[in-house]
Amino acid sequence: MSDAPNFLTPWLPEVADLHDPALSARLQQVLDNKTKPLGSLGQLESLALQLGQILGTEAPRLQAPQMLVCAADHGLAARGVSAYPSDVTWQMVENFLAGGAAVSVLARQHGLALTVVDCGVRHDFGPRPEAAPGAARLLVRKVGPGTADASAGPAMSEAECAQAVRQGREVVASLPGNVLLLGEMGIGNTSAASLLLAWCSGRPVAECTGRGTGLDVPGVARKVAVLEQVMARHADLRDPAQALAALGGFELATLVGAVLQASAERRVVLVDGFITTAAVMLACALVPTVRQRCVFAHQSGERGHALMLQQLQAQPLLSLGLRLGEGSGAALAWPLLQSACLVLAEMASFASAGVSQA
Amino acid sequence: MSDAPNFLTPWLPEVADLHDPALSARLQQVLDNKTKPLGSLGQLESLALQLGQILGTEAPRLQAPQMLVCAADHGLAARGVSAYPSDVTWQMVENFLAGGAAVSVLARQHGLALTVVDCGVRHDFGPRPEAAPGAARLLVRKVGPGTADASAGPAMSEAECAQAVRQGREVVASLPGNVLLLGEMGIGNTSAASLLLAWCSGRPVAECTGRGTGLDVPGVARKVAVLEQVMARHADLRDPAQALAALGGFELATLVGAVLQASAERRVVLVDGFITTAAVMLACALVPTVRQRCVFAHQSGERGHALMLQQLQAQPLLSLGLRLGEGSGAALAWPLLQSACLVLAEMASFASAGVSQA
Repeated sequence: MSDAPNFLTPWLPEVADLHDPALSARLQQVLDNKTKPLGSLGQLESLALQLGQILGTEAPRLQAPQMLVCAADHGLAARGVSAYPSDVTWQMVENFLAGGAAVSVLARQHGLALTVVDCGVRHDFGPRPEAAPGAARLLVRKVGPGTADASAGPAMSEAECAQAVRQGREVVASLPGNVLLLGEMGIGNTSAASLLLAWCSGRPVAECTGRGTGLDVPGVARKVAVLEQVMARHADLRDPAQALAALGGFELATLVGAVLQASAERRVVLVDGFITTAAVMLACALVPTVRQRCVFAHQSGERGHALMLQQLQAQPLLSLGLRLGEGSGAALAWPLLQSACLVLAEMASFASAGVSQA
Repeated sequence: MSDAPNFLTPWLPEVADLHDPALSARLQQVLDNKTKPLGSLGQLESLALQLGQILGTEAPRLQAPQMLVCAADHGLAARGVSAYPSDVTWQMVENFLAGGAAVSVLARQHGLALTVVDCGVRHDFGPRPEAAPGAARLLVRKVGPGTADASAGPAMSEAECAQAVRQGREVVASLPGNVLLLGEMGIGNTSAASLLLAWCSGRPVAECTGRGTGLDVPGVARKVAVLEQVMARHADLRDPAQALAALGGFELATLVGAVLQASAERRVVLVDGFITTAAVMLACALVPTVRQRCVFAHQSGERGHALMLQQLQAQPLLSLGLRLGEGSGAALAWPLLQSACLVLAEMASFASAGVSQA
């Protein structure tokens, strides 16, 4: 899939294969000499190995973590696929900037720099004062005032999709640090993510579609019916680039660009829930080596996320029944990444601590 | 079980019933007005409710969290139930104090005060210099130089057991803060925990027994055979106090006292893995209202822990395949408790943020 050129090919970076058996062996040896039974830190050990491989060292250090929340509106929202009105997208962007949203609170807790990108919100945020140090800042990288209705045609044109991907790459290139945490906001975007999952996995829409922000059972049935129409309308999508343009959203395409750039720069990518995992799934379909950079924060309560994680052979760190998005799950998992690095850096070895081995 | 008096009855505190439907309703309302779909923070919301109920307020604040690591040796270890020699207990205590163990690293990461209690390690730690500010400190509350071999008689006498419980209460009473994190060290103590689980649940020893620090398959079979002997030797245990004395350990009994005192003082108790959950199971058998104070950090990879959590109707926060103990899982889960409180305290409401509701 990734070998055939598509309209995004000119915008895709080189993402090197990180496979390095010698480094893996050294990392494993460091872990195995720590004062603990072999493997007893479970998934924290596999995480430490992965972080070492991504950052290319036995002593990975996570620096200046960046929470990137991409926001946009969806034409499909007019079809009643969400429990909330589209206005909630811009209202929540204001809430992110004011510091009152879940992701704001959690980013503050953990010292994560928070950047909100208007990728195509149907609202003019107007000129904003410079953000205070430590406060969230807004970047306007608007492709348009929300996507078109995907049940009537492609959600975005190829040019729009390419623009969003390019902008996502540029935004990440401008950020410091070596960890990117993914977040999003966009009323209607669980629909886009479900559509992308259905396309990528070949599974029926109904298996890929859940309650989103809280639809009731008839609401989900209506959502499935709309999404089935969309899939029928776009039965001829030939590659992941076309799928992203036809079914995705501006925030999703921007996130795809962000993930590609972070991967090319060998940053750790900490993936949040259903929407950001969809962006990662697309980025991996475009450039498979992206997968090596991705740490999956959690399995969400949204139907379809488990399937999507399975599709990516991902083992998430948390499973707390979260279904909020915004990057909240990525922020909650963040301290585990720090712990994994500290275990490598600071735990004593059997020899240094004078502890007997088994 | 808890109503009939037993030899520990004189040492058990009053632990009030926290049931307060009015407070629960207020907490739920605070959560439901936050700018997020109803229930979308999943288990973090139930955690916030529980923390509010324990601390008796809609705005719980966690203060001066205390990681308490209780250490002791086990007579049963001489029967070859562990992959490691008993000397590792005191060696690891030194490692805790020197800052090189997993729990040391994670406690430092999260600013958790670390107190190590020698409850009965077969080693003389000698006089220690005053701990530097922020460093781990050692308290010597030794009941004896390790327990007796439980396959030949009770692991401890009733007097020893009561002393350990009393000392656990005293240690916690001397600590500041409103959160107690439980940790432990003791070669052979997965055996004691398995025995207590078998006694409390009525299940066969084999279902309650796992690899501990890393036994191979024949090693586990030998361990099960030894533990079956122990259970046969103690077929007449009539109450949880007798079970604790016959099958437990000095660190386990001290932890039971610690949990009882923390509960009486209405502290949050953050439970680690298999061993500390066993202590909580016993404390709950002695005083059922203790259960209301307990947050379960994780489900470990040790066989039997899932059963034990089920016995306690506990839903753990993490499931990372940890099987290290020490309090490492409690430390890893700690930031989630802080997040739950911050969500209550700092997230905007729909009204305050001007966000439309569904």
